[in-house]
Amino acid sequence: MPQLNATGPDSHNEAVLAARLALSATATGGEAMSDVEFFAWLDERRPRHRQEVRRTTFAELSGWHFAPDTGDLEHRSGRFFAVRGLHVRTDFGPVPEWGQPIIRQPEIGILGLAVREIDGMLHCLMQAKAEPGNVNGVQLSPTVQATKSNYTRVHGGSAVPYLECFREPWARGHRVLADVLQSEQGSWFFCKRNRNMVVEVGPEVEAGEDFCWLTLRQVNMLLRYENLVNMDARTVLSCLPDWQHGPGPSRALHSDVAIRNWITGQQSEREVCAELVPLREIETEGWHVGEDRIAHERGLYFSIVPVDVASDRREVASWSQPLLQPHGTGVVAMLVRMIEGVPHCLVHARVEPGYLDVIELGPTVQCTPENYAHLPASARPRFLDLVERARPEQILFDTVLSEEGGRFLDAQNRYLIVQAEGDGPDHVPDDYRWTTLRQLGELLKYSHYVNVQARTLVVALRSVPGITAALPAAAGVHAVPAAGSTGEGAERADHR
Amino acid sequence: MPQLNATGPDSHNEAVLAARLALSATATGGEAMSDVEFFAWLDERRPRHRQEVRRTTFAELSGWHFAPDTGDLEHRSGRFFAVRGLHVRTDFGPVPEWGQPIIRQPEIGILGLAVREIDGMLHCLMQAKAEPGNVNGVQLSPTVQATKSNYTRVHGGSAVPYLECFREPWARGHRVLADVLQSEQGSWFFCKRNRNMVVEVGPEVEAGEDFCWLTLRQVNMLLRYENLVNMDARTVLSCLPDWQHGPGPSRALHSDVAIRNWITGQQSEREVCAELVPLREIETEGWHVGEDRIAHERGLYFSIVPVDVASDRREVASWSQPLLQPHGTGVVAMLVRMIEGVPHCLVHARVEPGYLDVIELGPTVQCTPENYAHLPASARPRFLDLVERARPEQILFDTVLSEEGGRFLDAQNRYLIVQAEGDGPDHVPDDYRWTTLRQLGELLKYSHYVNVQARTLVVALRSVPGITAALPAAAGVHAVPAAGSTGEGAERADHR
Repeated sequence: MPQLNATGPDSHNEAVLAARLALSATATGGEAMSDVEFFAWLDERRPRHRQEVRRTTFAELSGWHFAPDTGDLEHRSGRFFAVRGLHVRTDFGPVPEWGQPIIRQPEIGILGLAVREIDGMLHCLMQAKAEPGNVNGVQLSPTVQATKSNYTRVHGGSAVPYLECFREPWARGHRVLADVLQSEQGSWFFCKRNRNMVVEVGPEVEAGEDFCWLTLRQVNMLLRYENLVNMDARTVLSCLPDWQHGPGPSRALHSDVAIRNWITGQQSEREVCAELVPLREIETEGWHVGEDRIAHERGLYFSIVPVDVASDRREVASWSQPLLQPHGTGVVAMLVRMIEGVPHCLVHARVEPGYLDVIELGPTVQCTPENYAHLPASARPRFLDLVERARPEQILFDTVLSEEGGRFLDAQNRYLIVQAEGDGPDHVPDDYRWTTLRQLGELLKYSHYVNVQARTLVVALRSVPGITAALPAAAGVHAVPAAGSTGEGAERADHR
Repeated sequence: MPQLNATGPDSHNEAVLAARLALSATATGGEAMSDVEFFAWLDERRPRHRQEVRRTTFAELSGWHFAPDTGDLEHRSGRFFAVRGLHVRTDFGPVPEWGQPIIRQPEIGILGLAVREIDGMLHCLMQAKAEPGNVNGVQLSPTVQATKSNYTRVHGGSAVPYLECFREPWARGHRVLADVLQSEQGSWFFCKRNRNMVVEVGPEVEAGEDFCWLTLRQVNMLLRYENLVNMDARTVLSCLPDWQHGPGPSRALHSDVAIRNWITGQQSEREVCAELVPLREIETEGWHVGEDRIAHERGLYFSIVPVDVASDRREVASWSQPLLQPHGTGVVAMLVRMIEGVPHCLVHARVEPGYLDVIELGPTVQCTPENYAHLPASARPRFLDLVERARPEQILFDTVLSEEGGRFLDAQNRYLIVQAEGDGPDHVPDDYRWTTLRQLGELLKYSHYVNVQARTLVVALRSVPGITAALPAAAGVHAVPAAGSTGEGAERADHR
C-alpha cells in the first residue's frame, strides 16, 4: 500500500523545515567553518583560479563565427549560445518599436544548492568559482552551476561535481526543498531560464576542494560584501522556502488572489511582440558590428565583445567566447515599509522583451541611470529620486553585486533596500504593488513571476536582521491607478 | 491606516468561499431557473443565433490575404490572428524535426465568468453563444468571451456585454475569485493564452438576453450533454478555487514540492526548439497550400479552411475567416484511482510545440487515434488500451465536447474519466504522475502548468457525484522511470 504524504503549505514537514532554516539563518556558533576560516580559505582559492581574460577581435575568436545567412554570432558546434537580433513592437510607452542584439540560449541549465545538516544545523555547500566576466575573478557560487552543454560534456571538459545530487535526488535518498525554472535578465537574454534547485543531502556528501559548508547566517553576512555572492547563488537562495513566516493564514495589504489578479491584468493589458530576427537586420536600428565589438551608435546600453580566456583549471585550459558588457552600473532598489507590523515591499510589474510572458515582478527601481540621459525628464525612472535622496538611516542594505560572469563582462548593480520615509509614497501607480515577503515566496515556487533582480533583493530582505523591528509602522497608502503612468516609458530605455 | 487582509490558503475567506461553492455544486432547489426552464430557454435561443457557414476559397476570403514576403495567411488589418509556419526541432522521440502550419494570435483575450448569490446560492452567468466552427451552432459559454480585437472594437462591432465586470472589478465593488493566464491547444496555437477570470458580482448585475444564471450543480449536469458547455466555459470553471478540500494539510502520494520537482525536471530534460517561420517554408515538409485548404499530403492532422459566415446578430452581420479543421475525433481521458481514500489522477507531462515553456500537464491520454495509423505499434499512445478496454462500470464520465468554435471547425474530443482497474497500472513511466485534485487546483492558480484538455477533465472530475465514494481503494502503484519510455514518441504524432 503506498504511503501518502502530508502536504500543502501548512503541513508539519514544511513547518519543521522553516524552523531549521530559521536556526541556520540566526544562530551563531556551530558553523562547520568559522567566518575567519572562511576568508582565509577564500584567499587561498583566488590564486588557484586565476584566469587571464584578453579582448580580441571577432575574426580571431576561436570556434565562433557570424553565420553567413543571418549574420548571427554563433558557436560552430551550434551549442552554447548565440547573439541574435530581436525586433520588439509594443503598444505602450514612448518607444513603440526597436531592434537590439540579444543572447539566445535555449538550453536549460542547473543552478543547484546542496544543503546538509552538520551538528544539528543546516549548511549550504558553496563553491569558489571564477568566471571570465567577473570584475574580481573568484566569487561564491552555488554547489552546481552548469549549462546543459557543460554537463553533457560538449566542452570535452571533466564531469561537473555534485551534479548527480540534482539529476537524481530521490534515487539517492536526497530531499528536494525547491525546484523551479526562473528567468534571467530579460533585456539581455531571450527567454533564458535556469533550473533553480535546493536539495538536502546526507552526511555522505562532503565538501571537495573549492567547496565549503556555510550556514545561512554566514551566506547572509557575505551578501553584504561587494561582488562576493554571485548571481547564481542569489537566485537559488531566493527559491528556498520562506522560513520567516509561521503556518496558518497571514496578513497582507492585498490578498493573494488580488495580487494574482493584478499580475494577470498587467500581462493582459500590455502588448509586447518580440521576435528573433537575423542580427544583420538590426544594423539599421543603430547597432553596428565592428571588428572587436557590436555596439550602439550612441554608446549606450551594452556592447558585445569577444574575449580569449586562459585558465590553469583542468576542465578546459583555454577558450574564447563573446561577453555582453553593460555600460554603466545599475541601480536596483526595493522600497519597504511596515503596514500594521507586517513588512511590505513595493514591486513593479516590469516589461522586458526577453521575458516568456510579457511581465515579471521587479524591484521598485531597476535602471542604469546613464541610459536615460538622452530622454526627456518625464522618462526618468520612477522612484529613483526616493532612492537617491534616502538618508543613511533609511538604507537597510546597500551592496554592489555582480551579474552572471559567464555571459556578462563587468556587469555590476548597486542593490539597495530603502525604508520608505514616513508612510512611503502616497499613491502608487497601477503597475506597482505593496506585497509581503511571504507573497513573493509563494510566487517563487512557480516559474516566471519574480525577476532575477528582485530575487536578489528577496534574499537580501530575508537577511536584514529583525526587519520587522527595523521598520516603524506607517499608514495611508493605497494603490490607485496612475494618471498617465509616465513611469512606463522609463523602464524601456534599458532594453534598447 | 490601511486594513490588512487575512490571506493565504487557509484563511477564513477561502474556507467560506469553498463552502459556498460546495453548496452551489450540490444543492437541488433554489435555482434561479429550473433545469426544465433552462432547456426551454436554450431551445428558444438556437433559432435566433443561426449562422450560415459556407466554405469558400482563399482568393475569395474577404479581408484576408497571403502576405507577399512570407506566404503567411493574415488579416489585412494586421489584427486578429494569422496562420504562419512553425519549425520544430527536439532531442527526443521518433520525429526529431518537423514543420507545420500554426495559428499565431499574440493578443490576450478575456474569458470571464460572473458569479452572483441569488437567494443564498451562488449562480454562474452563462451565455448562449454561436460560433462558426461549432457542429451545432449555439453552445453555453462564459459571461464574456472576447479577444482584445473584440473589446477594442477592431471589428467595428457593438460593445461586449459585462466586459466592465472583468476590466475594473475592484472599482465596481466586485470580488475577484480567480484570474490567471492559461494556454490553449499547443499543437494548433503558438503561445496562445487567454485570461481566465471568475468575478463575484452584486445583485445589480442581471442576466440580459442570451444570458442565464445557473448553479454549479446545473453547469455540472449540463457538462454531460454532448457539445453543450463550450471550451471557454470549461477552462474558466477549472480555475475556480477547488472547493472539495477543507483547510489544513492534505494527503497525496507525492508532496507538492515533489510534484514541482518532477515538472521542472521534465521541462529541463527535454529540449524543444520551436520557431515561427514563413508559412511558405513548410511547403517542403508535406503541407500544401491549395485553393480552398492548406492540408498535409497524407490527409492527416488538420487542414486550414476558409469560410464565409452570415449571421443575423447585430454586432457583425457577416464576415470571413480561416478555421482549423482537425481530422478525426480525439480521445482525451484521465485515469483515476483511490489511494488511502484520496482520489488521484494520472497526469502526463506533455510536450506540444506551441507551449510557452516546453511541457504542461495533460490528461493520461490525449490523441487522435487516426494520426497513429502510419506509425509503428510502439508509437501507439500509452494507456489508450486501458481506456478502450474499460468496462462500463469503470467509466465515470464520457461525453463528446467541442473545442473553441471561433478558431476550429467541427473540433470534437471524447472526454472520459476512467477508473483504473484493480490497482491501476503497475508502474507509471517517469513522464506520468498520480496527483490529487487539490494539487491540480493549486497549480491552476498559476500560468501554464495544466493544459486545456486536462482543465476540462478537472471540471468533469469535480462534477462526479461522490467521486471519493465511487472509487474503491487500491494499492501497490509506485512511480518508476520508464525503461525506454516509448510513450514519448506517441504524443508527437498529433503535433505534426
